[in-house]
Amino acid sequence: MTPEEFRAAGHVLIDWIADHRTRIADLPVQAQVRPGEVAAALPSTPPAGTEDITALIADLERVIVPGLTQVQHPRHVGWFPSNAALASVLGDLASSGLGGLGISWQSAPALTELEQVVCDWMRQLTGLSPSWQGAIHDTASTACLVALLAARERAGGYSVEHGGLQSLPQPLVVYASEQAHSSVPKAVLLAGFGRDNLRLIQTDPQTHAMLPDALAAAMAADVAAGRRPAAVVVSIGTTATTAVDPLATLLPIAGQHGAWVHVDAAMAGSALLLPEYRWLIDGIDGDGAGSPAADSLSWNPHKWMGTVLDCSLLYVRDPELLIRVMSTAPSYLRSTADAVVEYRDWGIPLGRRFRALKLWFHLRLDGVPAIQARLRRDLLNARRLADAVAAEPGWRVLAPVQLQTVCLRHEPPGLVAADGAVLDGEALDRHTLAWADALNASGAGFVSPAVLDGRWMVRISIGVESTEWDDVEAVWTAARAEAARASAVL
Amino acid sequence: MTPEEFRAAGHVLIDWIADHRTRIADLPVQAQVRPGEVAAALPSTPPAGTEDITALIADLERVIVPGLTQVQHPRHVGWFPSNAALASVLGDLASSGLGGLGISWQSAPALTELEQVVCDWMRQLTGLSPSWQGAIHDTASTACLVALLAARERAGGYSVEHGGLQSLPQPLVVYASEQAHSSVPKAVLLAGFGRDNLRLIQTDPQTHAMLPDALAAAMAADVAAGRRPAAVVVSIGTTATTAVDPLATLLPIAGQHGAWVHVDAAMAGSALLLPEYRWLIDGIDGDGAGSPAADSLSWNPHKWMGTVLDCSLLYVRDPELLIRVMSTAPSYLRSTADAVVEYRDWGIPLGRRFRALKLWFHLRLDGVPAIQARLRRDLLNARRLADAVAAEPGWRVLAPVQLQTVCLRHEPPGLVAADGAVLDGEALDRHTLAWADALNASGAGFVSPAVLDGRWMVRISIGVESTEWDDVEAVWTAARAEAARASAVL
Repeated sequence: MTPEEFRAAGHVLIDWIADHRTRIADLPVQAQVRPGEVAAALPSTPPAGTEDITALIADLERVIVPGLTQVQHPRHVGWFPSNAALASVLGDLASSGLGGLGISWQSAPALTELEQVVCDWMRQLTGLSPSWQGAIHDTASTACLVALLAARERAGGYSVEHGGLQSLPQPLVVYASEQAHSSVPKAVLLAGFGRDNLRLIQTDPQTHAMLPDALAAAMAADVAAGRRPAAVVVSIGTTATTAVDPLATLLPIAGQHGAWVHVDAAMAGSALLLPEYRWLIDGIDGDGAGSPAADSLSWNPHKWMGTVLDCSLLYVRDPELLIRVMSTAPSYLRSTADAVVEYRDWGIPLGRRFRALKLWFHLRLDGVPAIQARLRRDLLNARRLADAVAAEPGWRVLAPVQLQTVCLRHEPPGLVAADGAVLDGEALDRHTLAWADALNASGAGFVSPAVLDGRWMVRISIGVESTEWDDVEAVWTAARAEAARASAVL
Repeated sequence: MTPEEFRAAGHVLIDWIADHRTRIADLPVQAQVRPGEVAAALPSTPPAGTEDITALIADLERVIVPGLTQVQHPRHVGWFPSNAALASVLGDLASSGLGGLGISWQSAPALTELEQVVCDWMRQLTGLSPSWQGAIHDTASTACLVALLAARERAGGYSVEHGGLQSLPQPLVVYASEQAHSSVPKAVLLAGFGRDNLRLIQTDPQTHAMLPDALAAAMAADVAAGRRPAAVVVSIGTTATTAVDPLATLLPIAGQHGAWVHVDAAMAGSALLLPEYRWLIDGIDGDGAGSPAADSLSWNPHKWMGTVLDCSLLYVRDPELLIRVMSTAPSYLRSTADAVVEYRDWGIPLGRRFRALKLWFHLRLDGVPAIQARLRRDLLNARRLADAVAAEPGWRVLAPVQLQTVCLRHEPPGLVAADGAVLDGEALDRHTLAWADALNASGAGFVSPAVLDGRWMVRISIGVESTEWDDVEAVWTAARAEAARASAVL
């Protein structure tokens, strides 16, 4: 495709995207396709000839759009928001259009240095001290793995240079809340610690946050048994309920054992853009005395803030701890420049996209005040929904609403007693899933059921860019209608 | 940014990209900035207000373009080609514009199923048997890590579910060519094997390919010492010289020890699109008798083929071996659909971009025949350059030219004897780096020096989409001029 062909096709595609974004609210939220239906609508063999952009757009309309759950839909309140702000879409287009290659500072000085600059802007905007340095990874799953690999090596005396994890005299142990995101146990297992050396720490029954005493006891027991605490993952905003582990209390406990503290604020990190929410990570810099600072922090601008996927920030206090584990210095990557940051040594991939551009475009085109105003709108809408649910007979809010997610359940009298005691848990689970699935299947809204304390509940997680109170109210109305319908057949 | 604002700004940006791609040949190839210069040209604090697209484009012109080494430049013959074909740029724009979220089949059935379809198209186009199933990862670094994690667990009896790598009775060992890409040792270390359990196997002095006898001996020695061979990484097209490890000969050796065989064809994989280059992976499906099939194969459409970064294919014969290691099944990712592929369980990240779109657009808009013709052009140009170098007094071709990379050296009479014996290695190294750096600094072309057999040489790696023979000839002319200039001060 020549630049002139690109120009013509690009204009067509830009118009199509603008039109598509305009009509999203009229689409069903949940994809209405059955497994295999999309694949069956496509040729099973590769194209032999050449087609033009109109053929592609026709297929986007015919197959792709109906095959997507519309997470940009104003009534998508299911998974955590995954906004793709159009300003950031332009930044990502600039990245692809420039065709830069991040394998070393030399290959793309601007890719490296804009990433440094923008990560530092984000540091300032989230109130982190200048002792933190950031880089962009694809997702928080990867960021957590990277942090745990660095933690593994620090705790194991840099065994990578010798016999590896296979050679350590003491097993290394990792700790996280039992409410931690699934990517945390996954990262622990991928890093080779083994499930036997993962402690999922008990949480408070009300707040669902990690219990410091339980962490302290688990660490002490491991030390007594000859094991070595390597890392604690602190969840700021868990997936099920957005519970906030008490970082300031946990840090000195971890510090007693020299364990790496990784702060996973994948979704909630966006709230740090609001000064009134900086309490979420109180203590992260330590107190200069008994409480040390955390070692790493990750969060995803590609979630609530809305810099299009994939854009996950990982901040560390000492990049040397990453570099010592991840660095490669082959001759063909020799850089003529000294004293430059080589981001390849801060993470897993060698070749990196110019991801800083999408953050840069997002911040400059949309502006920080507008982003902050939107986050505050969502927090208010969640509060308002929680009040409405609490006031509605037969409904219950199941967890503190600290951010933009409301955990709720419809509890019909025959299944739950007036004092909240569950009378028939299995029937309650069936009922919850029945009305939630019916709501999702209707396409009128999309909520995500999840298990809390062994029982299904429903999360309404607000934060799509276009979601206004009217949309939240519409979903809430639909939820009541579906729950009533499901109750009728109990 | 509203859809209408996006429409207006998008048209401006599309035009800018088309214009930029048109003028790339007039830019210096290597970025002409000093360390810190880009960062210094940008504000150190985040923007307080809102700007428009013209401000962003002005900064792209002022800071970003001059800060990039232009790897899309027709005289970039340094690192392996990293083409960003404009057809694929449109596909990536469609991905961002749609704003889909790949966390499960349910969240984006089309994202999952188009990836299945396109990976299967690519399988057919590269002549792999139907026993291979593919997925898209960011880079070959990650794909290699994923393969080694699966290999680690298969060899270790799925220790992730117990004590992890820390609990194994026998150390696991990984084997690769001493010419393997730096991402291979890095993946071995990140997977926790430890450098002591990485064997970099000797290569043939002429072909630079792994010596099967040396592999067999190393594996036997490890087994005799009580260690267990876990994986062999076979390099198809090494970074320094595009050497091709003899897969068909290596497979039965690995098979004797039940070791996982990962085929790393990161760059050379593009050549598999040409039937006449399928010999590169001869034997990959085994012979049904003593020679087993390989377990995994990765290559990067984002390199020579040109599907914009990041797009790395990882094929496996048995996805269950990945799923068993990478799967998470938390309640909030519950899918209503059965029997669907959950790509999150095939790799590290949970959240995945809709990357299949860029391959889909690339294949359909550019067409396979045009891509094949371009690859053949590059192979011919490399052959032609090699002939020219071999015919030029004082110059030598240092490795077989099997693909599109020519390894060469200027060997002035005082430094190298007529029979090729190096008389003064350090002076030769200084001379090589002097002329290569001068060429790169001039902006007239970009080559990449690398170390081979302990001495610097220069790689001319052809394959940028716009590189024609005239461009190769221009770089070759500049190389001779710079080498002559450098010789004058010897």
